[in-house]
Amino acid sequence: MEPNNNNNMQPDSCLEITPMEVHKVVPPPHRSTIQKLKSRLKETFFPDDPLLQFKRQPLGKKWILAAQYVFPILQWGPNYSFKLFKSDIVSGLTIASLAIPQGISYAKLASLPPIVGLYSSFVPPLVYAVLGSSRDLAVGPVSIASLILGSMLRQEVSPINDPLLFLQLAFSSTFFAGLFQASLGLLRLGFIIDFLSKAILIGFMAGAAVIVSLQQLKSLLGITHFTKQMGLVPVLSSAFHNINEWSWQTILMGFCFLVFLLLARHVSMRKPKLFWVSAGAPLVSVILSTILVFAFKAQHHGISVIGKLQEGLNPPSWNMLHFHGSNLGLVIKTGLVTGIISLTEGIAVGRTFAALKNYQVDGNKEMMAIGLMNVIGSATSCYVTTGAFSRSAVNHNAGAKTAVSNVVMSVTVMVTLLFLMPLFQYTPNVVLGAIIVTAVIGLIDLPAACQIWKIDKFDFVVMLCAFFGVIFISVQDGLAIAVAISIFKILLQVTRPKTLILGNIPGTDIFRNLHHYKDATRIPGFLILSIESPINFANTTYLKERILRWINEYETEEDIKKQSSIHFLILDLSAVSAIDTSGVSLFKDLKKAVENKGSVEASAWHLNCLFFFNCLAF
Amino acid sequence: MEPNNNNNMQPDSCLEITPMEVHKVVPPPHRSTIQKLKSRLKETFFPDDPLLQFKRQPLGKKWILAAQYVFPILQWGPNYSFKLFKSDIVSGLTIASLAIPQGISYAKLASLPPIVGLYSSFVPPLVYAVLGSSRDLAVGPVSIASLILGSMLRQEVSPINDPLLFLQLAFSSTFFAGLFQASLGLLRLGFIIDFLSKAILIGFMAGAAVIVSLQQLKSLLGITHFTKQMGLVPVLSSAFHNINEWSWQTILMGFCFLVFLLLARHVSMRKPKLFWVSAGAPLVSVILSTILVFAFKAQHHGISVIGKLQEGLNPPSWNMLHFHGSNLGLVIKTGLVTGIISLTEGIAVGRTFAALKNYQVDGNKEMMAIGLMNVIGSATSCYVTTGAFSRSAVNHNAGAKTAVSNVVMSVTVMVTLLFLMPLFQYTPNVVLGAIIVTAVIGLIDLPAACQIWKIDKFDFVVMLCAFFGVIFISVQDGLAIAVAISIFKILLQVTRPKTLILGNIPGTDIFRNLHHYKDATRIPGFLILSIESPINFANTTYLKERILRWINEYETEEDIKKQSSIHFLILDLSAVSAIDTSGVSLFKDLKKAVENKGSVEASAWHLNCLFFFNCLAF
Repeated sequence: MEPNNNNNMQPDSCLEITPMEVHKVVPPPHRSTIQKLKSRLKETFFPDDPLLQFKRQPLGKKWILAAQYVFPILQWGPNYSFKLFKSDIVSGLTIASLAIPQGISYAKLASLPPIVGLYSSFVPPLVYAVLGSSRDLAVGPVSIASLILGSMLRQEVSPINDPLLFLQLAFSSTFFAGLFQASLGLLRLGFIIDFLSKAILIGFMAGAAVIVSLQQLKSLLGITHFTKQMGLVPVLSSAFHNINEWSWQTILMGFCFLVFLLLARHVSMRKPKLFWVSAGAPLVSVILSTILVFAFKAQHHGISVIGKLQEGLNPPSWNMLHFHGSNLGLVIKTGLVTGIISLTEGIAVGRTFAALKNYQVDGNKEMMAIGLMNVIGSATSCYVTTGAFSRSAVNHNAGAKTAVSNVVMSVTVMVTLLFLMPLFQYTPNVVLGAIIVTAVIGLIDLPAACQIWKIDKFDFVVMLCAFFGVIFISVQDGLAIAVAISIFKILLQVTRPKTLILGNIPGTDIFRNLHHYKDATRIPGFLILSIESPINFANTTYLKERILRWINEYETEEDIKKQSSIHFLILDLSAVSAIDTSGVSLFKDLKKAVENKGSVEASAWHLNCLFFFNCLAF
Repeated sequence: MEPNNNNNMQPDSCLEITPMEVHKVVPPPHRSTIQKLKSRLKETFFPDDPLLQFKRQPLGKKWILAAQYVFPILQWGPNYSFKLFKSDIVSGLTIASLAIPQGISYAKLASLPPIVGLYSSFVPPLVYAVLGSSRDLAVGPVSIASLILGSMLRQEVSPINDPLLFLQLAFSSTFFAGLFQASLGLLRLGFIIDFLSKAILIGFMAGAAVIVSLQQLKSLLGITHFTKQMGLVPVLSSAFHNINEWSWQTILMGFCFLVFLLLARHVSMRKPKLFWVSAGAPLVSVILSTILVFAFKAQHHGISVIGKLQEGLNPPSWNMLHFHGSNLGLVIKTGLVTGIISLTEGIAVGRTFAALKNYQVDGNKEMMAIGLMNVIGSATSCYVTTGAFSRSAVNHNAGAKTAVSNVVMSVTVMVTLLFLMPLFQYTPNVVLGAIIVTAVIGLIDLPAACQIWKIDKFDFVVMLCAFFGVIFISVQDGLAIAVAISIFKILLQVTRPKTLILGNIPGTDIFRNLHHYKDATRIPGFLILSIESPINFANTTYLKERILRWINEYETEEDIKKQSSIHFLILDLSAVSAIDTSGVSLFKDLKKAVENKGSVEASAWHLNCLFFFNCLAF
């Protein structure tokens, strides 16, 4: 049976168990293998049919549509008005005030020089404004991708002993991340990110938030000799084995700013209109703490500061990319993992806000936009960037209308890079730590976790695996374990499909699961089973064993046998959407096994795939 | 929704689209999470319910049943009669005449000393007779497992330069193969071998047969300097680059015996009653060729012979097993691959003949038997053994009644080992090559390949991948590629489930695929879609996009819109057997998207999972 023929087994109706003269359905029209393959490929790779809009259009219009497809800016650009710009400039400045301190913080999280975080908030938003189709995405470095990039590269190269090589590897990883993202979009393989289910993401993000927060103990406690490992256990033991290094000035300052930032966050969460409170708080903290340090010369009293930062725009970095050598494997692996993680975040954020404002975001197109943004970024001293969830939410709340808000942010960052860098010299690291902790706390979504517990216990287990895997093993292994369990669950559903015994509900034509419906009754002499999955090589053996056991059980249950011995086995295949070669031989084997049974009374064999109720009579 | 709740969405009937007063189905009785988990685990790991027979039995009887469960010999042994023995001795001697030349040949295929092949035909059959539940399985070394064992170990260790280490690694691999097989059975994870679908096996076996036959060019052509690689290209180029080494005497002898053996095979295939012709032919060839060589002193004229073989029974080899050291990884990997391949062959053979004779073979029990047999074998100088397809067929045709035929074979091999070894000194290698070629030709199953082409084109592609992968890349990679493609197909079915548009067949209550049934018609204002797979994280995004595209297409098709704009979207979930957390949010998202649509006329939302037709009204 070929994939498309199986539609024969459509849920067409139970009427066919009443006499068959009622209506005979003609077989479907013949389709050639090529036709089937074509429609199958279209369904697989072009579910959204991106070419639909090109139909029945003159050639000139087609070119314009194609250009608009590749560069969405051509779509909204011509209608851009001053009114929209007013909204965009407010939101752009708001996210810039968030992007500057976060950029510096996240770069430190990735063990990169702080200025790379600002570089990454300058070029990629400009690229995205031209290519991206989301109106709310605020582009820049994000916490989880920074964490993973840093931790994966640190396993092989030390950012302290060999900072230049580390930087080169970071840019190369960014290049491969972008290449991978763009290829996923171009090859329309976007469904790969679907394998990161909601449950996995919730567990993973919460775990990552814990890991990121723990890393901040270094700056929050003012420890100088801190472990390079990421796990819960080594980090905590490192923090408490170095109590002598704790600096009370740092702890005091950190505590104050953390409380301030969390309060600001709390206010904005309660009243979304006051979004600017939490949006402005990081910048205010940075300014305030810098002034404090400068005024009290606190850098000489145990408070570590960022130090001198270079002025000027992004230097080119294409000559720093590694395409060969011993670190190529590491770079590709890091690019793949950070690429997929940042893509997942970017696409999810884009879709969330698109749904809120009722416009469409084409997943494959977004992947190409984010991918190209990272490829270009890797050549201009930027590391992995994507649409950040927290900043996009602020952007949305601040009233962003188009991607111009990204351009405004980018220009603000440019001004900072050109003229304001010396001001950050006295910014204490402890404040950056507090900013990161406040940002990642939002990644822990307890209500969603409760919801998952209520709906599906297995998904909850997957979520816990992701969470504990990230905390106790490593970020990428935790993720891999959770994905493996999820795929295993899908495979298990297929290898061990449910078979149900159905009974008639008296007075109706309805057949229901006997074990769930107390008023459903067996029809004497009939065994009615429902199979609930495609029948294929992975489950034929199981199905055969299970069906034979149903027959054995029927024969051993005394009270049923009293009524009548088994005469008919009816298989309801309405939930079977496909049958492969092995599946076909299941029916042959089953026929043989059933014919060999002692209780066989008649050995006629009717298997008619045209019917929803398929009869194996014996 | 939890797995078992989804039965609510059973194919209960289309009656529910007629007024709902007809019959209201009560919700199923509540079951606790523990109960659900328990029944789920039972369905997953004990589909055949092996404890069923223990129910309602007295304690003493239970012990006997348990002993019989572990040692099936206790089940049939007490009723064993002289009449059965007469059948078994005939079949046992027949398979022994096949096992001795094949044992020697297969050991050479695995680059092991020929005598190891005979050792492996002595101990394992005895173990299997006690533990195994198949009555027809003829146990011993088999071609494919020998090929893989040899080729995997040769990649790291040379059997010529370091024969002792090679032997140790072979025994250690056998130990791990057995351990792996027994654990699969014990943990009831037998379904892992189900992932080798029929299509994969046909392609794989044909490829392996080609590879094995090509390897025989060395002995058939009398070449001394032959490549150590396995692929088609290097072997053929090696054969033709060494034309100067070809020996016409060897070629002539090989050709004659090959024709003789193929003729004998042909006769037996035409008339199954003449099974003894092909069964006896290898031994006849060995005896004849040995006499010829001895008579003409042909070993001095370019015909290579086996040479002196040691007399005596299996020496112990448990002190040769490697459990640590640099080769442990190789040994475990080899054990895993050969273990799973030989298990697949053994189980398939057992099931085939059990079905012919109408008795049951318990897959998990067989795995334990085969596994223990290999573990014991590895301690007594045997390499990987299993139930061989060709010898089992001969065993069956020769009238074997019980596993005693294996004992008879084993005793015959023992006599050979003790007294007849010097006779093999002059046996020419070319005859062993001819025996192997004749044996593996049966593995190429062209009719089955044609059958697969007819039934399922995708399975055919998988088969070709396995075949060409084995021929051009390597045996284990070809297998891995084919398994990966098969799993990818399952995942694709789940990530890209079919959605069908249904229409009413006039004059009936039947709803069918509009694109397949020309007489099916749309109901104005209704869009009826059927989803054909569990809804889970891997396909929610796709389903959402695809359903929205169905709505768009409905709205853009002029001739449909003329009748009525879209009012209702009906989703038929009868083929949806499970919904996970992400699946639940699909419905929420869909509701939001549908509500936001311009053509919304009413925004009531009814989603009632109790019903087969789930209405999203808008």
